Amino acid sequence: MRGSSARINRVPISAAEIDKYPWSACYIQRQMTQVPTAEENIAALGFKLPALPAPGGNYVPAKRAGNILYLSGVISIGPQGVISGTAGIDRSIEEGYAAARACALTQLAVLKRELGSLDLVAEVLTVNGYVNAAPGFADSPAMINGASDLLVQVFGESGRHVRAAVGVSALPRNALVEIQMTVRVRES
Amino acid sequence: MRGSSARINRVPISAAEIDKYPWSACYIQRQMTQVPTAEENIAALGFKLPALPAPGGNYVPAKRAGNILYLSGVISIGPQGVISGTAGIDRSIEEGYAAARACALTQLAVLKRELGSLDLVAEVLTVNGYVNAAPGFADSPAMINGASDLLVQVFGESGRHVRAAVGVSALPRNALVEIQMTVRVRES
Amino acid sequence: MRGSSARINRVPISAAEIDKYPWSACYIQRQMTQVPTAEENIAALGFKLPALPAPGGNYVPAKRAGNILYLSGVISIGPQGVISGTAGIDRSIEEGYAAARACALTQLAVLKRELGSLDLVAEVLTVNGYVNAAPGFADSPAMINGASDLLVQVFGESGRHVRAAVGVSALPRNALVEIQMTVRVRES
Repeated sequence: MRGSSARINRVPISAAEIDKYPWSACYIQRQMTQVPTAEENIAALGFKLPALPAPGGNYVPAKRAGNILYLSGVISIGPQGVISGTAGIDRSIEEGYAAARACALTQLAVLKRELGSLDLVAEVLTVNGYVNAAPGFADSPAMINGASDLLVQVFGESGRHVRAAVGVSALPRNALVEIQMTVRVRES
Repeated sequence: MRGSSARINRVPISAAEIDKYPWSACYIQRQMTQVPTAEENIAALGFKLPALPAPGGNYVPAKRAGNILYLSGVISIGPQGVISGTAGIDRSIEEGYAAARACALTQLAVLKRELGSLDLVAEVLTVNGYVNAAPGFADSPAMINGASDLLVQVFGESGRHVRAAVGVSALPRNALVEIQMTVRVRES
Repeated sequence: MRGSSARINRVPISAAEIDKYPWSACYIQRQMTQVPTAEENIAALGFKLPALPAPGGNYVPAKRAGNILYLSGVISIGPQGVISGTAGIDRSIEEGYAAARACALTQLAVLKRELGSLDLVAEVLTVNGYVNAAPGFADSPAMINGASDLLVQVFGESGRHVRAAVGVSALPRNALVEIQMTVRVRES
């Protein structure tokens, strides 16, 4: 986790920019204060960004207007393929939590491809989480926390977002979770 | 309801700002034309802003980018706790209407806490209404009107918004309604 | 379909503007390169913009903030009325595709009424597609492609958008599909 002092020197200059100038005071301070980048945080958590599947329809993964980047919904896909099933029937909260986290990892991979570096994510704005859920399933928020927790672990305070979590009757490829997001991009 | 003359002098200066300058022509005109503030409208309708529950997961109630304020989805909670149930099974349209209105009251309380005053809401932009609904339930819009009607009663014309109302298979804590919103904030 | 040379001269000046100045080089070039407008594309596809139904609740069809135009969700309505039914029970993928396309046509009619001309749509940003779906229905994306394909056929590359497609338990008037959109409006 980032300490507050670390965050202070990270706001005006991205870690990627700092790394370009190894003779700069910022670079030296960064090395001394050990400010982890978003990608270092992902590695430290034991995750890596997945390969991106082709979109499942005639749409694009991301689109930018001004400094807002809109991301398409992505379904839960893990190393063994689609994480499918229905909450309240054949999937536990823990499985839903892992599925939501897998969606967030995919979105991070989309962000890296779109922006070149996760350091250009200024903040996560919104997360809409859809859970493939049987009627009466009341715990979608505990599942969608799998995405929210990861975003905060990776981006620190700027990863905190507004959110809606709902249970839906069906998701593409019978996925257990789908996550749609918007982020604000750092002004270059 | 606000008359059109009242609205004319309210657009450029918020009621909160006017109240700071009781010697101003605007203040006197406001007193004379009886322009009700959003909070006065809420009181006149017989409602009051509820206490805010803690978020049900790792997310924040509101996040701002530029002059757009994004709000997390909130579920229907009344004085007796969660307003739960399923449209088309054990809940009437009137109960859904009241549940949606309760969501909107919670969002107004969120807005007041975030902005300090509801007078800083320039306009409501979007409302996404989710109804916990049995298959075939066709009347989500009549329920979500409970939120939409309140927003127009409180903010007048600037409370009018775009909307989507859908029936979902499950909501957090088995709530009957969930409402997610975005508003535009007055430039200060 | 537009060729790339056609698109080059279309970005800075809208077709509507060009048409005001028939003596201009742009107009002559446009006539020579046969750049079709969005409305010409609609006609060439054999479609026409439908009459707009009244909103089904207390909301407005569109609302603008800056150069972003938010559109209310619209349900699938064809010449014979609401296109209703449930995916996975009594409706095929082809019927869902046509229903999604009908939603997009309605949104195009909304855009024309709001903006005066479809040439003022700079790009489509987001599409949220809701399919009235039985549990386990896995093919919402193939249905929502009916909207996405039309938007790309009408606007070319600038019609490509981010998207989320989910199956829901119920839609207003038992519609088969509902589509909610946001677009970026050309700076005037």
